[in-house]
Amino acid sequence: MKIVTCTAPVNIAVIKYWGKRDEKLILPLNDSISFTLSQDEMCAKTTVAISPNFSEDKFWLNGKEESLENPRIQNCLKEIRRRASKRKMNGFDDEMLNWHIHVCSANNFPTAAGLASSAAGYACLVSALGSVYGVEGDLSVISRQGSGSACRSIYGGLVRWYKGEQTDGSDSFAKTIAPPDHWPNTRVIICIVNAGRKKTPSTEGMRRSVATSSLMEYRVQTSVVNRVNKIMQAINEKDWSMFCDITMADSNEMHAVCQDTFPPCVYMTDTSQAITSLVYQYNEIKMANKEDHHKICYTFDAGPNACLFVPGEVAEEVMNLVVTAFPPKPTQALDEYIRGEKPSNSELSKELTDLIDGDQEAGRLNYVIHTKVGDGPRLLSEPSNHLLNMDTGLPK
Amino acid sequence: MKIVTCTAPVNIAVIKYWGKRDEKLILPLNDSISFTLSQDEMCAKTTVAISPNFSEDKFWLNGKEESLENPRIQNCLKEIRRRASKRKMNGFDDEMLNWHIHVCSANNFPTAAGLASSAAGYACLVSALGSVYGVEGDLSVISRQGSGSACRSIYGGLVRWYKGEQTDGSDSFAKTIAPPDHWPNTRVIICIVNAGRKKTPSTEGMRRSVATSSLMEYRVQTSVVNRVNKIMQAINEKDWSMFCDITMADSNEMHAVCQDTFPPCVYMTDTSQAITSLVYQYNEIKMANKEDHHKICYTFDAGPNACLFVPGEVAEEVMNLVVTAFPPKPTQALDEYIRGEKPSNSELSKELTDLIDGDQEAGRLNYVIHTKVGDGPRLLSEPSNHLLNMDTGLPK
Repeated sequence: MKIVTCTAPVNIAVIKYWGKRDEKLILPLNDSISFTLSQDEMCAKTTVAISPNFSEDKFWLNGKEESLENPRIQNCLKEIRRRASKRKMNGFDDEMLNWHIHVCSANNFPTAAGLASSAAGYACLVSALGSVYGVEGDLSVISRQGSGSACRSIYGGLVRWYKGEQTDGSDSFAKTIAPPDHWPNTRVIICIVNAGRKKTPSTEGMRRSVATSSLMEYRVQTSVVNRVNKIMQAINEKDWSMFCDITMADSNEMHAVCQDTFPPCVYMTDTSQAITSLVYQYNEIKMANKEDHHKICYTFDAGPNACLFVPGEVAEEVMNLVVTAFPPKPTQALDEYIRGEKPSNSELSKELTDLIDGDQEAGRLNYVIHTKVGDGPRLLSEPSNHLLNMDTGLPK
Repeated sequence: MKIVTCTAPVNIAVIKYWGKRDEKLILPLNDSISFTLSQDEMCAKTTVAISPNFSEDKFWLNGKEESLENPRIQNCLKEIRRRASKRKMNGFDDEMLNWHIHVCSANNFPTAAGLASSAAGYACLVSALGSVYGVEGDLSVISRQGSGSACRSIYGGLVRWYKGEQTDGSDSFAKTIAPPDHWPNTRVIICIVNAGRKKTPSTEGMRRSVATSSLMEYRVQTSVVNRVNKIMQAINEKDWSMFCDITMADSNEMHAVCQDTFPPCVYMTDTSQAITSLVYQYNEIKMANKEDHHKICYTFDAGPNACLFVPGEVAEEVMNLVVTAFPPKPTQALDEYIRGEKPSNSELSKELTDLIDGDQEAGRLNYVIHTKVGDGPRLLSEPSNHLLNMDTGLPK
């Protein structure tokens, strides 16, 4: 038996992927750029085992047995095996490609939270497959075929997914454009919004936007192209204030396109919008105080949750502001409400307190995650990390 | 003393006015099209009196004395007097132009409702001024200078406001494009949403959209131009289904531009979005039943209230659906909750009942107005209608 375990990170786009030019190969209509998040708070973990003794392929996801026949998983598996068969590697036996495979995968964060768990999941699966079959080189093109944004979780720091020009998708890959410490100590605060609304799955939403929104066409052909160039400049020049403005503008535009879709796919709720207002007001204070480098920014994926990027120097202040403006229900302990580093009980400044109405409804957020920017997938060599038993190949 | 009283209607745009090319003259970036609403449920009423005995200009609005020095009111007044002085009319004495003026104005609907009360108000003021000074011909160019969309309230039925090309605004006027009974018995159902959020005033919102949204540029130059042509065709061909789709698409696009504005000016709330979902689901049922002519549509102005256009044949059904999906608070009588014609207590069909989750939060709407399409401003000749005392020129 050959067995391998990997973890892979979640990533959050600052220039959004919204719309495919090829549904089957998962090729996007525009370049996108993301921060890879630390795996301390959130990651997917996958163990892959292959053995001549396995009688069939098996797959367990978050403790439940599922079918491996999912076409997206099969695409990844096929592509990895194709690449493996092309390489004659040390100790790699072509026979292994015919062995059955066991896959066991789990996230250390709730999938129901509406976070992009499939990106971490597919990046993790492809990393583990790549390792078990001895495939080297870029894996982003392969994980892209599992879930588009998964290609960005193959690398750490700031990552750019190039849309590519080829019809076969061979040039639609991801690449690190800046390391995790490019802006040292950047914090990521994710506000998990308590949403009632049923949401349109992102695959369907994208398809509908491409088919019905004329603003979508303009975004893809003009505005997002300009914005990618501008944010690359902001990143290269380490201009955090400009980076924040572009990040918010692109989130705004993506959700504008969703609103322009027919019928609209609206992901942001009243609570999401209340968070954006708070961010703009916070930044106004920072700018008035000539602290543009302490600005913060938000971005929203295809869901109501806000993801805030925050300079380390103001992380505690922002955490306090968020928790004060959006208090937990009285029944919820603060320890349960905040996952990751808690702020100290320092008081908010008068100007920040003034941003808050005073009569705040509790429970608008389910919880808040405080995390950091991080690196790409990891191979865990310690056998205790495997999710599958090394003798039986079944879940521990 | 010369005294005149007019009423003027509210109008609701189906192709939206959002963005000015000239702030002072109030010239829009694109043509817009609206339905003028019946004055039975909602109108502004204005009495204008001029007299050689008045010692100063006076103005009362909704029972409170205000200054007539508001530049927008002064623009209307100046323009009316300029036009009057150019005409030598029967019985019109140039001396009258120097008399002081008393203006008393009131709406028969709450201004706080977030309905476009200024459109009805300025259309009414300009109609009354035109009448008192004997100005004939088109008054839409003048009322436009009070409040842009007021120019559309000068006419009945379906009205188009041409953006015009001239820098002096002389060709930016409104015109009826179809009479009130073009689609006979069209009903208008306005859902007044209980909104917590502070809203950006529309003048500021427009200015910000023009300055910051790249989608705005595309809307104005491309998509709204196409949509105006398409809706004109739908109106000429009496294609109600197409009219509905274009109306919703333009409302969607305007609010997409608002979302794309930096910072965003978001007017629709979760309740607004819940109404749009209900409309799309209702239309799906009608289309499945091959009743495309019974489709309904929504439009949203710079606020959370939904305005629905509904064929008379299904008005009762839609009223029942709205009131069932958005029930009043138990303390609110149905008579108070519905202004205008009430639906009978007929039961909703099973397929419509199925659209509603079952556990509906009460009080998401403040109330519902049920009204019709109507005609333009009216001159009320009966002295009992005057809001000013005919002897003193003071409010009755």
